[in-house]
Amino acid sequence: MIHPVRWQGDHVSLIDQTRLPVAEVWIRCDTWQEVAAAIRHMQVRGAPAIGAAAAMGMALAARPIAADSTLNPLDALLAAQQGLAATRPTAVNLFWALERMTRRAVAAGSSGSDWATVLTEEACLIHDEDVAMCRAIGDFGAGLLPAGARILTHCNAGALATAGYGTALGVVRSAHAQGKVSLVYVDETRPWMQGARLTAWELRQEGIEHRLIADNMAGHFLHRGAIDCVIVGADRIAANGDVANKIGTYSVAVLAKENGIPFFVAAPSSTLDLSLTTGDGIPIEERSEDEVTHLAGHRIAPEGTRAMNPAFDVTPARYVSAIITEAGVMRPPYEASLATVAGARLKATT
Amino acid sequence: MIHPVRWQGDHVSLIDQTRLPVAEVWIRCDTWQEVAAAIRHMQVRGAPAIGAAAAMGMALAARPIAADSTLNPLDALLAAQQGLAATRPTAVNLFWALERMTRRAVAAGSSGSDWATVLTEEACLIHDEDVAMCRAIGDFGAGLLPAGARILTHCNAGALATAGYGTALGVVRSAHAQGKVSLVYVDETRPWMQGARLTAWELRQEGIEHRLIADNMAGHFLHRGAIDCVIVGADRIAANGDVANKIGTYSVAVLAKENGIPFFVAAPSSTLDLSLTTGDGIPIEERSEDEVTHLAGHRIAPEGTRAMNPAFDVTPARYVSAIITEAGVMRPPYEASLATVAGARLKATT
Repeated sequence: MIHPVRWQGDHVSLIDQTRLPVAEVWIRCDTWQEVAAAIRHMQVRGAPAIGAAAAMGMALAARPIAADSTLNPLDALLAAQQGLAATRPTAVNLFWALERMTRRAVAAGSSGSDWATVLTEEACLIHDEDVAMCRAIGDFGAGLLPAGARILTHCNAGALATAGYGTALGVVRSAHAQGKVSLVYVDETRPWMQGARLTAWELRQEGIEHRLIADNMAGHFLHRGAIDCVIVGADRIAANGDVANKIGTYSVAVLAKENGIPFFVAAPSSTLDLSLTTGDGIPIEERSEDEVTHLAGHRIAPEGTRAMNPAFDVTPARYVSAIITEAGVMRPPYEASLATVAGARLKATT
Repeated sequence: MIHPVRWQGDHVSLIDQTRLPVAEVWIRCDTWQEVAAAIRHMQVRGAPAIGAAAAMGMALAARPIAADSTLNPLDALLAAQQGLAATRPTAVNLFWALERMTRRAVAAGSSGSDWATVLTEEACLIHDEDVAMCRAIGDFGAGLLPAGARILTHCNAGALATAGYGTALGVVRSAHAQGKVSLVYVDETRPWMQGARLTAWELRQEGIEHRLIADNMAGHFLHRGAIDCVIVGADRIAANGDVANKIGTYSVAVLAKENGIPFFVAAPSSTLDLSLTTGDGIPIEERSEDEVTHLAGHRIAPEGTRAMNPAFDVTPARYVSAIITEAGVMRPPYEASLATVAGARLKATT
């Protein structure tokens, strides 16, 4: 199982997710600016993986601060935080990790002299916690699945989208280890093809039986009784249980509900944004039209065709059967159940 | 406006829809076998266009029959009918056109000597009737749209999918001529990209404002109130109003209903199959896995990835707000309303 974001003593290694599955290329980041560029260009993607990478970016930012006495330490660190925060707007794990890193630095004193050490420790802690949370999510989620489960997933919420193991695919991994998975339907997930490129790659490595489908086929298979449950990840979850996730998630959720099939969201508590009462306040990233008019560098549509490209959508909580967190399986009403997750987390970190 | 299927005196010309929008290439068919190959390879596609092309294929088949006295005329004609019928299973217009051609031949006598003439006339009649039906559908449908309509369509039910003018896009054309269309959302329609390649091409030629979206974005825009109605074509409609159409149509219909947005199907009476009481009996074509794992010749998924590729799905009648035919706008209960369309057609042709 892959760990896509790695601390290497004095730099960060990331597997370039824009090149998979054709090539397995690792990129080296020596500065926070290089980490920010990798997030912006989706060489690292997936809400928890972005959080872990950004934390390591802050650890890289601390190194020149300690070495350069002309810098105001906090200003320099906040500049790095701001630069990393400006990369992508929707996933909240990014902001969560950055704020945690700055809090840790401030707690270590204002001189910045210890920051390289403590922020490296904190970034590695965030990384390792994420893997542990994914394993817990996987085990809680596996308990929800029937024997011989036929599972639909959308996008990639796998090891590649996290520090390792995955959220939605973490559930699939744990259930597979228990012999419970019969087939995984993989939505290809246009325009960026995370399903076809990344989820299919992970499932193939694990030897988990799967079939790739176009996004518009999921409804057909849900309607025909070919799927027992849907599991997806999340980029941000509001206090009421509304879920922002990859574009197309809302459609799958509606189609699951219409056909009486459970729709599960798997996410660590770092994905919760209890400052938002509903999903209406979640900013939706708009990406380049070229991602829709082109595929793998090839133009699909006539020259000059305009496109729209929202990268995420918001699934109202009423379509969500359960939210699987590292603290257990949360059920509606989510205002109450998600508050207990946040409370448990707060207790664990103070 | 394009006429994609043309009788040229002694052969048939078809615009190669596998090459659009990159190149506008016309292919020449001198035999029914060449027409059958063009249908099988989707160089001509769209239920009414397939019907018109197949009718012309039968007219081509009649020519050697008249010239070769060693042939049993009816056997030779039925062999052509069978060969053309074996190309694609879902669209019923194909079988409808072939049966009409054979009936016309039989009515002209058993010697086959006149068949080239009468079948050419009949094929051209089917072609011209289809254009006229599309125009009637367009005008009936335009009456359903609000001023400033923002319309979602899936696949290509345009001039390219018919003898000319289109069914769903016929409605868009007529409404545009009345100044009623503000924007058309075009589902790209994986895996074959009929929306991105063909619908965008037609709308661009007509100067109708449009935006290309990935299939999985349609639900997001329906949910956000950005779309006033959905219009699609059909490949076969059962007596109860269940509609077989391009894969993904069912999903759009469910998402429209969930959001209180009308879902219209536009199709000529040749698309009705009243021999089927429900859509359960409609055969769904399964196409090559390569169409999903590849795009434009490029592999998207890891080597060896398996895929599923149903080319159509069935939308239950309860999701269909109205079926727009050349005889008018049919409303539920469809058993009754569609029977009147078939009755009117029977009367017109006898």
